[in-house]
Amino acid sequence: MGYRVAIVGATGAVGQGIAKKLQERNFPADEILFLASARSAGSKVEFGGKEFTVEEAVPERFDGVDIAFFSAGGSVSKQLAPEAVRRGAVVIDNTSAFRMDPDTPLVVPEVNREALKEHRGLIANPNCSTIQMVAALEPVRRKYGLKKVIVSTYQAVSGAGAAAIGELGKQSEDMDNRAGAEAELLPVKGDKKHYPIAFNAVPQIDVFSEDGYTFEEWKMINETKKIMGMPELSVAATCVRLPVVTGHSESVYFETGNPSADAAGIRESLHAAEGITVMDDPENQAYPMPLFAEGKDDVFVGRLRRDLDTPGAFHFWVVADNLLKGAALNSIQIAEALIADGLLKGEDADGTRQHSDGDGHAVR
Amino acid sequence: MGYRVAIVGATGAVGQGIAKKLQERNFPADEILFLASARSAGSKVEFGGKEFTVEEAVPERFDGVDIAFFSAGGSVSKQLAPEAVRRGAVVIDNTSAFRMDPDTPLVVPEVNREALKEHRGLIANPNCSTIQMVAALEPVRRKYGLKKVIVSTYQAVSGAGAAAIGELGKQSEDMDNRAGAEAELLPVKGDKKHYPIAFNAVPQIDVFSEDGYTFEEWKMINETKKIMGMPELSVAATCVRLPVVTGHSESVYFETGNPSADAAGIRESLHAAEGITVMDDPENQAYPMPLFAEGKDDVFVGRLRRDLDTPGAFHFWVVADNLLKGAALNSIQIAEALIADGLLKGEDADGTRQHSDGDGHAVR
Repeated sequence: MGYRVAIVGATGAVGQGIAKKLQERNFPADEILFLASARSAGSKVEFGGKEFTVEEAVPERFDGVDIAFFSAGGSVSKQLAPEAVRRGAVVIDNTSAFRMDPDTPLVVPEVNREALKEHRGLIANPNCSTIQMVAALEPVRRKYGLKKVIVSTYQAVSGAGAAAIGELGKQSEDMDNRAGAEAELLPVKGDKKHYPIAFNAVPQIDVFSEDGYTFEEWKMINETKKIMGMPELSVAATCVRLPVVTGHSESVYFETGNPSADAAGIRESLHAAEGITVMDDPENQAYPMPLFAEGKDDVFVGRLRRDLDTPGAFHFWVVADNLLKGAALNSIQIAEALIADGLLKGEDADGTRQHSDGDGHAVR
Repeated sequence: MGYRVAIVGATGAVGQGIAKKLQERNFPADEILFLASARSAGSKVEFGGKEFTVEEAVPERFDGVDIAFFSAGGSVSKQLAPEAVRRGAVVIDNTSAFRMDPDTPLVVPEVNREALKEHRGLIANPNCSTIQMVAALEPVRRKYGLKKVIVSTYQAVSGAGAAAIGELGKQSEDMDNRAGAEAELLPVKGDKKHYPIAFNAVPQIDVFSEDGYTFEEWKMINETKKIMGMPELSVAATCVRLPVVTGHSESVYFETGNPSADAAGIRESLHAAEGITVMDDPENQAYPMPLFAEGKDDVFVGRLRRDLDTPGAFHFWVVADNLLKGAALNSIQIAEALIADGLLKGEDADGTRQHSDGDGHAVR
């Protein structure tokens, strides 16, 4: 017997990706509820060759739901995720609403799977840029340690939603008029100004905080420390949006603090890591690129080389599909880990499904 | 009486930019010779509303030339620049051929104008990515010092020539077929493999050296140390090509080594610096972007903020037109400095032109 799964934000890019991946990975789902805000309710989504009607996400819809994937924006999560948990669902939330809540595990299974044991019905899926970076850094940390990280990102527009892809596409058609292209959405839909993204690089993702950092940069800094369980880790981030459809890239400098660390040892640890593909053969021009990471599950790492000045410090280039490992895939991997580790309610550690009474979990 | 100027590589993007800027800045030129390789000789260029025929760059063409701007590739410079110098011209070379030659000054006038005094007829113009970075770092160094620099670049295709712009334009027309786009040129014309640049980010500029760094990265590292006269400076670079037509951007982390350095003081020093425009008002989403730096002379600096972990360390975002400050403009600024400082042959320190005998300089 399988699980009853709800996807909140079923019409969005991440929601669609979750549905597709559930199917692709033969996730043990008996039933899938496609939910969305009132605005999107009534629209149709396709799943397994059949058409389904999207229903409005109201608290009662979560009765009897085992696992609810939320990706309909922070305010929807804040309002409805506790309702879903109260009704017995385990919520895996893709928004930033609960990520820094001390009682909510923030999980990349390859890095901190054990944090799932502490969940109280709600697990947060990290920011897309954070996930791929910590996935690539974790094998390094385990082998050599980690002291300092400086990252500059090269982020795709699909992180800003399907409409942003349309905006990029339209602007790209007329390169000669690039400076005069109409922009209505990027860099941030709700912010005051909008700039063309085609043929441009925009050093703003999410709004600015008072200290000159954007919230995207703060997410990378704080989430990395939380996921790695290292409040003392030095992390700095500069986040930049590019005219790339899907696939975030990151130029990462890191200090292990271990002068005996070498590139060969790091490469070995990356090769052995689950979910990482090392693509690093400069002589044959093999390195990760977002255009070719699109649609792939793995985190791709290349351009690994030692820093020329600081012993034990290195640089690498990390690329992943921001909608998959950065969002949908990682969410499902969290659900799979919960099942495998017996951390869904009413379930034995061997993953055997048992009938639940619907009130197994308390909300925070 | 003005100077006799030659432009070698007159049909290329930089050569064209030099011609345009000479006119725009009322450079004291009596005559301009448009020269190129045999392949391009005979083609026409426009200058001041008139059409000129490009002539083949042979040694004899430099007889009587006062200033020769070279931007026709390293091999042309290696062969012809010494010939031009032997004939009395002062050569300002845009290629990498002589940049690291200990006897050749490598100059960004705002940074190391005094190095021009040591010239022996040949002055090298630095790499585009290097110029804008050192221009932005120099005011910081003068005020607070400089210990370590880590840069990740976001570089435009025009640095790879006019054909690369055409390739980007063609690929951009069909976003849906982005992964199947034809690529014949980028990342490096003469290298084995070519990848689409539209909707992509390619972490290779120039070919790879054996240590895993590209030559573009080595140029930024070595040229920065030479221009700043700081062989002990720590510099690391990751260079990435983007689907941007013109305008290089750089995410720069730097340590001053001075714990009392603050962002306000740095901002003040940048405001006071010649050739720098500070564009840094996050609340109003004001920050530099390549799309809007195109065609502008200045180096634009924004996103300045202190590093959260290392005292005296900061991050900023530097954008400039790679064909102007990165190439043509800096070359002409070198020539203007030579004139103003009386460092052309047969010239008084007050810039008064005197007739030369054509053998005033020895070649290295």
